[in-house]
Amino acid sequence: MTLLVVGSVAYDSVQTPLGAREDALGGSATYFSIASSYFTLVSLVAIVGQDFEPAHIELLEAHDVDVSGLERVEGDTFRWSGVYSTEDVNQRETLDTQLNVFADFKPNLSDEHRNADFLFLANIDPELQLEVLGQMNQRPKLVALDSMNFWIEGKKAELDRIVEAVDMVFMDEGEARSFANETNLRKAAARIHEVGPRIVVIKRGEHGVLVSNEGNLFSAPAFPLDRVVDPTGAGDTFAGGFMGLISATGDLSEEGIRRAAVLGSVIGSFTVEAFSADRLATLTQEEVVQRFAAFERLTQFTGQNNSNALPWRA
Amino acid sequence: MTLLVVGSVAYDSVQTPLGAREDALGGSATYFSIASSYFTLVSLVAIVGQDFEPAHIELLEAHDVDVSGLERVEGDTFRWSGVYSTEDVNQRETLDTQLNVFADFKPNLSDEHRNADFLFLANIDPELQLEVLGQMNQRPKLVALDSMNFWIEGKKAELDRIVEAVDMVFMDEGEARSFANETNLRKAAARIHEVGPRIVVIKRGEHGVLVSNEGNLFSAPAFPLDRVVDPTGAGDTFAGGFMGLISATGDLSEEGIRRAAVLGSVIGSFTVEAFSADRLATLTQEEVVQRFAAFERLTQFTGQNNSNALPWRA
Repeated sequence: MTLLVVGSVAYDSVQTPLGAREDALGGSATYFSIASSYFTLVSLVAIVGQDFEPAHIELLEAHDVDVSGLERVEGDTFRWSGVYSTEDVNQRETLDTQLNVFADFKPNLSDEHRNADFLFLANIDPELQLEVLGQMNQRPKLVALDSMNFWIEGKKAELDRIVEAVDMVFMDEGEARSFANETNLRKAAARIHEVGPRIVVIKRGEHGVLVSNEGNLFSAPAFPLDRVVDPTGAGDTFAGGFMGLISATGDLSEEGIRRAAVLGSVIGSFTVEAFSADRLATLTQEEVVQRFAAFERLTQFTGQNNSNALPWRA
Repeated sequence: MTLLVVGSVAYDSVQTPLGAREDALGGSATYFSIASSYFTLVSLVAIVGQDFEPAHIELLEAHDVDVSGLERVEGDTFRWSGVYSTEDVNQRETLDTQLNVFADFKPNLSDEHRNADFLFLANIDPELQLEVLGQMNQRPKLVALDSMNFWIEGKKAELDRIVEAVDMVFMDEGEARSFANETNLRKAAARIHEVGPRIVVIKRGEHGVLVSNEGNLFSAPAFPLDRVVDPTGAGDTFAGGFMGLISATGDLSEEGIRRAAVLGSVIGSFTVEAFSADRLATLTQEEVVQRFAAFERLTQFTGQNNSNALPWRA
């Protein structure tokens, strides 16, 4: 089946405790589409400027990402720069954001894209997200979105409308708490369900992920790494692996959703091992299969079958 | 088999977003011994003052905790008071610590206690921990300790000596990073192994637990709760459930350690549902069995057997 992502393609400049990179390929739709490309046919809708390098289009094409919806216009590509804390590499501060051509992004989907089976609305203006959903020829089998605090604080009413209209949301812990106005994560997920989505995916960074599928909770840790080089794009990669598997299998059962969350975690763990999409873009099937197996070993324990009853004292 | 815990029995005054309690029963050895009492014969060695209420000794006795090592002397019982953040109930600030009779705690084990099969050195002065270990008639099957930043910062050399001598350490994330002088958690665990213990248990509060058993990693989430009333004692309860199961089964295999970590998480999740040891002290087997089953459902996913191979695109 086919997967459509609408989001940003950007050049990022980041400093982390392990180094720095200037104008490296980034953006939510970039990470998402490369990650999902390993499993499904993904189409990317985004906008870049005249400065966007042909090599980066070739990189996407080499992953068989459909780039027919990647608009190239006068001006510069979206740029973001940030610095990650030396005490805690999972904390970051934005130094600068230059929207450039992204400020005038008005996605107009092709007829083929309007027929996609699965739709991921990456973190863009919630009004645009609603507009894109309205362009679809028929309701996709699953519509998911990502957002950020900027929209929760600045366009809550508009965000509410698109959240109400989707089947699944990806939010980080802080965003979920802020959106739901509730510090308890389980209650926050319940409130988000009330707004609309039947699946709430709460990304917890180095602490893993909590998925509430109609109130059915699944919790998985992050894969513990020796070396985190650059966390940028981990969340978008996670969503790409997650949606990529869903699009490949069409399996929306509880079991399917859980496997998708684990695969997203596995794929996301590679992204942070290098700057930009360097590691993500060179993944092999064997690497992913091996880390998936390591993830199983990391989390397995023995339940309470007859031979393992808890030794309760009378 | 028998389990010995040496630690504190205290009266705590806490404020949390959901209420406040004055002079409630607390202390590491209290939570630890009640939690482990559901699974094994546990002996408590601690000190209290003349103000210690007979009802609290009766509570321990009602759980079949051996209190023959609970010394009662002139003066007041150890008191701690703290306040938990309304933004994040897992963050707390200590308002006051009055060591009182605990300042002169010099444990002198009875001959029976010197023969215990398992030993837990709760968070006390590392010099006392080493002294207690030296009093044992023979090496217990497993010796574990807990500590805190106060000793990591103030008595690092003494702490190093006892950490070197034990088989297992319980530390929270911040303590592990600080003790190992390493922010990456996986590397921090590796450094702690180098000091001595073959099992490193890193408590992550609401984010669960990471266990490194000779480098073999196990990660489990915390059980997500709707309502966290008072986090005090969660870590000591976790250790009590963990060591209680180990003492009951004697199973020190990787599988046994993992089950112990899950049971500790399950038992710990009850403690935070009420102030003091109120919820912990009234646990039933059915409640624990049910939550253990819920913990299994929370974490299960399908692996990569033949019928579930990852749908990798060629």
